[in-house]
Amino acid sequence: MAPQLDGYFKQVDALSDRFIERLREAVAIPSVSSEPARRPDVVRMGHYLRDQLTKLGAVAELRELGQQPGTDLNLPPIVLARYGNDKNKRTILVYGHYDVQPAEKSDGWDTEPFELTVKEDGRLCGRGSTDDKGPVLGWLNAIEAHQKAGIDFPVNLLMCFEGMEEYGSEGLEDLVNEEGKKYFADADAVCISDNYWLGTERPCLTYGLRGCNYYSIEISGPGADLHSGVFGGLAHEPMTDLVRVMGSLVEPDGTINIPGIAEQVAPVTADEEGLYDNIAFTMETLHESLGSKTTIFDDKKKTLMARWRMPSLSLHGVEGAFSAPGAKTVIPAKVIGKFSIRTVPNMEIEKTNELVYKFVEESFKKLNSKNTMKVYAQHCGNWWVSSPKHWNFEAAAKATERVWGVKPDFTREGGSIPITLTFQEATGKNVLLLPMGSSTDGAHSINEKLDKKNYIEGIKLLGAYLHYVAEEPMN
Amino acid sequence: MAPQLDGYFKQVDALSDRFIERLREAVAIPSVSSEPARRPDVVRMGHYLRDQLTKLGAVAELRELGQQPGTDLNLPPIVLARYGNDKNKRTILVYGHYDVQPAEKSDGWDTEPFELTVKEDGRLCGRGSTDDKGPVLGWLNAIEAHQKAGIDFPVNLLMCFEGMEEYGSEGLEDLVNEEGKKYFADADAVCISDNYWLGTERPCLTYGLRGCNYYSIEISGPGADLHSGVFGGLAHEPMTDLVRVMGSLVEPDGTINIPGIAEQVAPVTADEEGLYDNIAFTMETLHESLGSKTTIFDDKKKTLMARWRMPSLSLHGVEGAFSAPGAKTVIPAKVIGKFSIRTVPNMEIEKTNELVYKFVEESFKKLNSKNTMKVYAQHCGNWWVSSPKHWNFEAAAKATERVWGVKPDFTREGGSIPITLTFQEATGKNVLLLPMGSSTDGAHSINEKLDKKNYIEGIKLLGAYLHYVAEEPMN
Ligand SMILES: [Zn+2]
Ligand SMILES: [Zn+2]
Ligand SMILES: [Zn+2]
Ligand SMILES: [Zn+2]
Repeated sequence: MAPQLDGYFKQVDALSDRFIERLREAVAIPSVSSEPARRPDVVRMGHYLRDQLTKLGAVAELRELGQQPGTDLNLPPIVLARYGNDKNKRTILVYGHYDVQPAEKSDGWDTEPFELTVKEDGRLCGRGSTDDKGPVLGWLNAIEAHQKAGIDFPVNLLMCFEGMEEYGSEGLEDLVNEEGKKYFADADAVCISDNYWLGTERPCLTYGLRGCNYYSIEISGPGADLHSGVFGGLAHEPMTDLVRVMGSLVEPDGTINIPGIAEQVAPVTADEEGLYDNIAFTMETLHESLGSKTTIFDDKKKTLMARWRMPSLSLHGVEGAFSAPGAKTVIPAKVIGKFSIRTVPNMEIEKTNELVYKFVEESFKKLNSKNTMKVYAQHCGNWWVSSPKHWNFEAAAKATERVWGVKPDFTREGGSIPITLTFQEATGKNVLLLPMGSSTDGAHSINEKLDKKNYIEGIKLLGAYLHYVAEEPMN
Repeated sequence: MAPQLDGYFKQVDALSDRFIERLREAVAIPSVSSEPARRPDVVRMGHYLRDQLTKLGAVAELRELGQQPGTDLNLPPIVLARYGNDKNKRTILVYGHYDVQPAEKSDGWDTEPFELTVKEDGRLCGRGSTDDKGPVLGWLNAIEAHQKAGIDFPVNLLMCFEGMEEYGSEGLEDLVNEEGKKYFADADAVCISDNYWLGTERPCLTYGLRGCNYYSIEISGPGADLHSGVFGGLAHEPMTDLVRVMGSLVEPDGTINIPGIAEQVAPVTADEEGLYDNIAFTMETLHESLGSKTTIFDDKKKTLMARWRMPSLSLHGVEGAFSAPGAKTVIPAKVIGKFSIRTVPNMEIEKTNELVYKFVEESFKKLNSKNTMKVYAQHCGNWWVSSPKHWNFEAAAKATERVWGVKPDFTREGGSIPITLTFQEATGKNVLLLPMGSSTDGAHSINEKLDKKNYIEGIKLLGAYLHYVAEEPMN
């Protein structure tokens, strides 16, 4: 039987101004995790959340993570909280982050980034509005609306909010692994709201992410940077070797040249073939978000497959070479090429690394250079694919249809959220990605926004999901 | 008849402490032309020179060059001076620069860079000691020693000292062209002391320089930098194209792949073949200055030819890509590859540019990329080769043998000093490069030094050169 939600929905609408004020308070705390000078603000944001949760009747605590490696700064605390402890209810663990990307008005913002600005068209503009303060506050707002409406909260809610997501989630993985069978022990399912709709019209549930292996190729020769007038033509130049090796990795059409990579990729099944046609996604929207028509494929299906289920190799840049505007006639003594491979089922991290190392070594050897080459992985994170048929997803799908009046797309993403897999492995439970914002929110860009409609309906959705997930038969 | 120089030489020795003090005063003025905050020091250094010259009885003036383009800074003045105006004497025009490279103790200097430190082994350590304050003061010291010894100065000396050499010589070329037939009208020959011996033992006279054409390859596609998770595998990546195009330009062994370049290079004559054997240069010293054994050739002759008379192509770096330490999963939207070609006789700038553009365009076209490519020259400076048989060089050779007791090597250099060609063309007179310092002075490095012996014997050499050049039959 479908849950009774009208009272809750009405209450959310009635409180919408209050919820926007709460978002304004949160955006006003410039909790930029990557800037040491802002660290006190990040900590302040953690305290703000703890205090808000306590006022709402949750049992909240701050977990200190000690010093940030390589600095004399303390890491911001992780906020752990529990709302409800009823053995007869299911327990849902939710994750979000309260830190934000850097932002300065001078970057090109139309408004002050740390002052929430409500536009006439309903955009709530401000750093962190959609990533990820809006969704995090969504859980708090859902609790408050239930209380004000006098509706019993359908589940026990476990919350884990971190303050270092935008800067590598330092310390989180250890904590999640540590608490998997302790603080998070009674979780029946996990829900993360920190991604986006594929477009702007249709909501989605996300069940897959690509992994990411990040590599460095280090080529060195001379003892120090050289003057190209004095040494040009008589010494092997590391940069000459590096562009050759980097150029050997991938074709301009995206084809990865490393033997053995394609062989690891799971074949497309007949079932899967049918999935793409109905996804709300057009090449026009893609060209818009790309800012050009320089896509490799002309059709939606190949493009979605390329993003979701095929590996890709991107060259990110070169460390140690001349990188400023203007002209400098230097021969760099040591250059480090950076590239990464987005991985997909059933690629294995170790096997992939070995294939990469072997290929790069052979590619360098062919150059007959007297320079020295090293290749190594900087970091590797595995891909994640969950089952969209799990009751956790079923419940979310029903909630979505109830709130938005439309069935959600089941999507995967090309990017990586490493903590997703960590939660899955540490708790042994299904993880659902349930986005609040849409594709045009500009999470890491200037003029980041969350549409008022996505915020308010999103609060309804989070609450509705908890009702449905409380009742959904465990398949 | 050889000039009487013993009195002059003795006087230089007697004044050597005073000359070292003068160098100390000059080094103490941190005239770093590339740092806006140091601009007043650069100007102060120009005034210091003008005042010293005036005290020595020269007619000195400061030529203001107006604002530095793109800044609100005034350019430092060019010091123009004349010492002697005797119609019966030859007139020699000398050039040097009074600005220096940046230096901070924290860069790794053993001593304070702007405090001249006299080491026990005779090294005079300090920024600008060898590049180019020592040589510039050499001319002033030569005047003073003549005065104190009561010896008639053998020539009229025209001096041109600039304060922007280390930052592009902004304004100098126009002034030299302007004054070629005015302030510099009666110059019979030109002498520049702003380069170095090939090694540390044998002095040299330099009669050739390579030119330098500096190019940018700009490849763009997306409207803004992309997240490689979201767009990797479905969009053409400018960086992928760029490394391919850059890699097509040159082989790891230095061979330039652009058709038509080799064809422009002057063939080696039988005469020239013999030149290299006697040059004081060893592969051991080269490996030492290179800091490794990663030379392309194993023998001296091929190596010297590669530096002096063959073109070379160096890849300097990439603007717009990720260049910091660490990992960033960005797909850069627009990348600019920088490379330069060192040019030699008889390469023509325009023809070379056309060959480069054509090759790069074809190389990019082969990629079948939807991205957009532009290639253009940032700046071009021609090569310069003078005749080492000219009376200006004959005089310098005799002076060198008189001071150092050894015949100088006649050398060319792989680098470019564009103003050399400008002086030659503006005055129509022979230009001689007469170095004071040696190859280990570290002109642009930490711990820059000028050996006391090179400074003091160098002052003798500059004076002796003026005596010989005053008498040398004009061939
Ligand atoms: Zn986020
Ligand atoms: Zn983010
Ligand atoms: Zn210089
Ligand atoms: Zn210099």
